[in-house]
Amino acid sequence: MAESDKIAAAPETGGLDPGASSAIDHEDRLRPEFVDEVLDAVEAGNDERAREMVAPLHPADVADLIELAARDERDGLVKALAGIVDADVLAEMNEHVRETLLDALGPDELARIAGDLETDDAVAILEDLEEHEQRAVLRAMEPDDRAAVEEALAYPEESAGRLMQRDLIAVPEHWKVGRVIDYLRSTDELPTDFWEIFVVAASHHPVGTCKLSTVLRTPRSTPVVDIMMREQTLIPVDMDQEDVALRFQKYALVSAAVVDGAGRLVGMITVDDIVHIIQEEASEDALLLSGVGEGDINEPVGESYRSRVRWLAANLVTALVAATIIRQFTGSIEKLAILAALGPIVAGVGGNAGTQTLAVTVRAFATNQLTSSNRWRAVGREIRVALLNGVTIALLLGIGVSLVLSSPSLGLVIGAAMMTNIVTAGMAGVLVPLTLERMGADPAVASSIFLTMITDSMGYLAVLGLATASGIVH
Amino acid sequence: MAESDKIAAAPETGGLDPGASSAIDHEDRLRPEFVDEVLDAVEAGNDERAREMVAPLHPADVADLIELAARDERDGLVKALAGIVDADVLAEMNEHVRETLLDALGPDELARIAGDLETDDAVAILEDLEEHEQRAVLRAMEPDDRAAVEEALAYPEESAGRLMQRDLIAVPEHWKVGRVIDYLRSTDELPTDFWEIFVVAASHHPVGTCKLSTVLRTPRSTPVVDIMMREQTLIPVDMDQEDVALRFQKYALVSAAVVDGAGRLVGMITVDDIVHIIQEEASEDALLLSGVGEGDINEPVGESYRSRVRWLAANLVTALVAATIIRQFTGSIEKLAILAALGPIVAGVGGNAGTQTLAVTVRAFATNQLTSSNRWRAVGREIRVALLNGVTIALLLGIGVSLVLSSPSLGLVIGAAMMTNIVTAGMAGVLVPLTLERMGADPAVASSIFLTMITDSMGYLAVLGLATASGIVH
Repeated sequence: MAESDKIAAAPETGGLDPGASSAIDHEDRLRPEFVDEVLDAVEAGNDERAREMVAPLHPADVADLIELAARDERDGLVKALAGIVDADVLAEMNEHVRETLLDALGPDELARIAGDLETDDAVAILEDLEEHEQRAVLRAMEPDDRAAVEEALAYPEESAGRLMQRDLIAVPEHWKVGRVIDYLRSTDELPTDFWEIFVVAASHHPVGTCKLSTVLRTPRSTPVVDIMMREQTLIPVDMDQEDVALRFQKYALVSAAVVDGAGRLVGMITVDDIVHIIQEEASEDALLLSGVGEGDINEPVGESYRSRVRWLAANLVTALVAATIIRQFTGSIEKLAILAALGPIVAGVGGNAGTQTLAVTVRAFATNQLTSSNRWRAVGREIRVALLNGVTIALLLGIGVSLVLSSPSLGLVIGAAMMTNIVTAGMAGVLVPLTLERMGADPAVASSIFLTMITDSMGYLAVLGLATASGIVH
Repeated sequence: MAESDKIAAAPETGGLDPGASSAIDHEDRLRPEFVDEVLDAVEAGNDERAREMVAPLHPADVADLIELAARDERDGLVKALAGIVDADVLAEMNEHVRETLLDALGPDELARIAGDLETDDAVAILEDLEEHEQRAVLRAMEPDDRAAVEEALAYPEESAGRLMQRDLIAVPEHWKVGRVIDYLRSTDELPTDFWEIFVVAASHHPVGTCKLSTVLRTPRSTPVVDIMMREQTLIPVDMDQEDVALRFQKYALVSAAVVDGAGRLVGMITVDDIVHIIQEEASEDALLLSGVGEGDINEPVGESYRSRVRWLAANLVTALVAATIIRQFTGSIEKLAILAALGPIVAGVGGNAGTQTLAVTVRAFATNQLTSSNRWRAVGREIRVALLNGVTIALLLGIGVSLVLSSPSLGLVIGAAMMTNIVTAGMAGVLVPLTLERMGADPAVASSIFLTMITDSMGYLAVLGLATASGIVH
C-alpha cells in the first residue's frame, strides 16, 4: 500500500509550480475560471489539455475539482482524467460523490484501488458498499491487503480499529538505538509516515515510545529503554472515534498506540488520520441542532429530504402545543387583536435566548468542559445571564409597546411576559440538554425541539394569560 | 523554553499510573468524586494530600481540575498546588480562568512563566494582557525570549506569525545526511518536537523538506537534496489562522514552513499547534449562528450578557417587522381568532426549514465546499429539497386543520401558506448567506437574524393574507 508524496503546491510556493498556482486562490479553493477551463476542455474533447492542467494538482484538489463539477459533467471529467483520478484522489473525495463514481466500477477495479490505499482509506471506501459488493471486492483483493481490510471491518464502525494503521515500528525492550536505526535502514516494508517508534515487551504489550527526533540524536550504544517515555496514551481498539479525537486534541498527541482487549499493540493512529474527525465532530453540533442529519451539500436530494422532513414533522407537532394554548385564549384575542401581534415577539425573542444558552451548553458537553462537577454552577451562570438579558429586553419592549400603543398597562404586561420567557428560556436552554445527557441521549440531537416547544408555549401563555388575568382585555 | 514530556496517563494505560487512572473516566474527563476529594483536601488544609493526588496528572488535566473548581475555590486550590500549576498547566487552561489567575501575579512572575513556555504559548498568554502590563512583563523577560515574543506580537492577531515556532531545523542544500545527523546530535538547543527538517538555499529560502523517517533510513553519504521533497506548502506569515487550519486539514500536513514576505523561512507550524484551532473554527458556526459570541461557559457573566443582549435586541427589531404585518390584519383576526393560533405554526416551521438550509450552507462555506463554481447548483438543490419538504408538511398541516377545525377551506389556506413559507425559507436559507458572503461579511454571523425575519414575515403574511383574500374571513 503506497501513498502519494505530493504536497500542496499552493500559490505561495513562490512559483515552484506555476500550473497549480493559477488553479488555486489564496484560501486553497480552486478558482472558478480554472474549473470552467478544465470542464470546457473536456467538453471540447481536448482531454490532453485537461490532463495537462490537472496533473500538477494535489489529490485533494483533484477531488475538489470533481466535486465542483455538475453531476452530468463528472463522468466525462473522470474519463478524461484517467490515471490522474487514482486511489489517492478517491480517498480525498466527498463520500457521496465518490459513491456515484464507484457505482460505475466493477469489483476487480475496486479491489485494485483498495490495494493501492492505506488500510484506513481502503476501509473508508469499502464500508460504504453494499454487503454483497463488499464481499466481491474483498475476494478480488490480494490476500495480505484483504486480511488487513477484513480485520479492520471486524471492528465497530467509527471505532479506533477502523481508523488505525497496522503498519508501525515496534521494537523489543532489549534493543539499542543503533540496532533500531539499522532495522529501519534495512527494512523495505515500512509505514509511509511515522513519527514515533513503539517499544514492546515479549508479550507485545507496549512499554514505551520514542520520538524519532530522540532516536536520531541518541548515540547508537544507548538502550532504547533509557530514552523511551514510559507514560503513554493507549487507545483501546474499540474506542469511539469521537473520544479518540478529543484525546488527541486534549493531549496534543501526534501518534498513539492502539491496543486490543488484552493490552497488546495492534496498530497506531497518527494525528493526520484524525484531523478530519476532529473537524467533523466539532462542526456536527451546528448540524444536529438544526436537524439536518449529515448536512452535506453533496448529499442526494432524496436523502436530505428524508432526514430533514422528520425534523420538520416533529416541529409541527411541538408547534401544535403552542397553537393549542393560543386557542384557549381566542376570546381574549377577539377582544384585543393586537395580542396576536405581540405574542410572536415574546415567543420568538425567548426562543432565541434559549437557543443561545443551548448552543453554549451543547458545545461545553462536546468539549468535555461540562461535567457533573460544574453542572449546577453552569445552570446558575445561565440564569444570571438570562436575568440581565430579560431585564434589558423586557424594558425595551415594554416601554416601546407603552409608547407606540399608548397603553402603559399593555406595556407592563408585555414586559413582564418577556422577562418571564427569557428567564424560562435560559433555564430550559441548560436544563433540557442536561436532562437529555443524563438520560443517555445526545443533547445536540433533540434539545432544540423541546426548547422551542417550551419557549413558544411559555411566550404565548405569558402574554395571553397575563393580559387576560390583568383585566386589560375588556 | 521547555515543554512537558508527560503523556496522558489515561485509564487504559494498564495500571502504569494508578493515581491518574482513578482520576479520569473513559472519556478523559476528571471524575467528579476525584475533583471533590481534591477540593475537600484543600479545604481541610491537607495540601499534601491534594498534591499527591494531582501530581500524576497531565498538565491538561490539572488545567481541567482548576476550571472545574468553583471560582471561590480556585485561589486556594492553586495555592495548594504551587509548583504543580506551572507554565504548562497555564498554557492548557481556558483563557477566562487563566486571566483571573494571572491577574493576581506580578510582572516578574509572569515573565518567569512566559520564559518557561514555547513562544506560541507565551504569546497566547501575553496577548490577553493590558498593554502596560504586557510592556512590564516583556521588560522583565530574558532578552532572547523577549525578542522572540516581541517579534511574534508584531504579527497580526490570529495570524500564522503568532502560531509558529521559531525553533526549527534548517540545513543548507549542500549538506549530506551524515552531516545533518551529526548536527542534530551535537546541538543542544533544538526544538522539543520536530518531524521534518527544512532544506534552505543560501538566501534562507526553503527549497525542500525531509521527513525524519527518511533521514533515519538514508545512508550518511546521500546529499539531502536527493531525498528531500521539493514540492511543499509554504505558509505566509500573515495568513489567517483559519486558513492555516483548513490547509493543514485539506492536505493532511504534519508540519509546514512559514515564510516572510520575501519568501525567507521564518518559522514552522506543527499540526499539534493547530488542532485546537481546527476544533475552534469548526465549532464556531454553531455559536455564531446562535449569536453567543465566544460561547464559553467560563466567560464572565457580564461579557456573556453584553455579547448576547445585542443579538436579542436585533431579534427584537426583526420581530417587530412580523408584528407590524400582523397588525395590518387585526380586522381579520378579530373576526377569525383561530388565525392567531395558526400563524405561529406556519411561521415557526418555516423558520426551522430555513435554519436547516442555513446550517448546511454555512458549513459548506466554512469547509470551502461551496464556491462560485457550484453556487447556483447549491441554490437549485435546496429549492428541490424545500419543494419536497413543503409538499409533505403542507399536506400534513392542511389535512389536520381541515379535520380538527372542520373547515376544508381553512385547511387549504393554511396548507398553501405552509408550502409558500417552506419554499421561501429554503431559498432564503441559501441566498441570505450567499449574499452576505459576496458582500464580504461572515455568513455565520448575521444570516439567522435576516432569515428569521423573512420566514416570520412570510409566514404571517401568507396565513393572514391568503385567509383574507380567499374570503374565508367573514
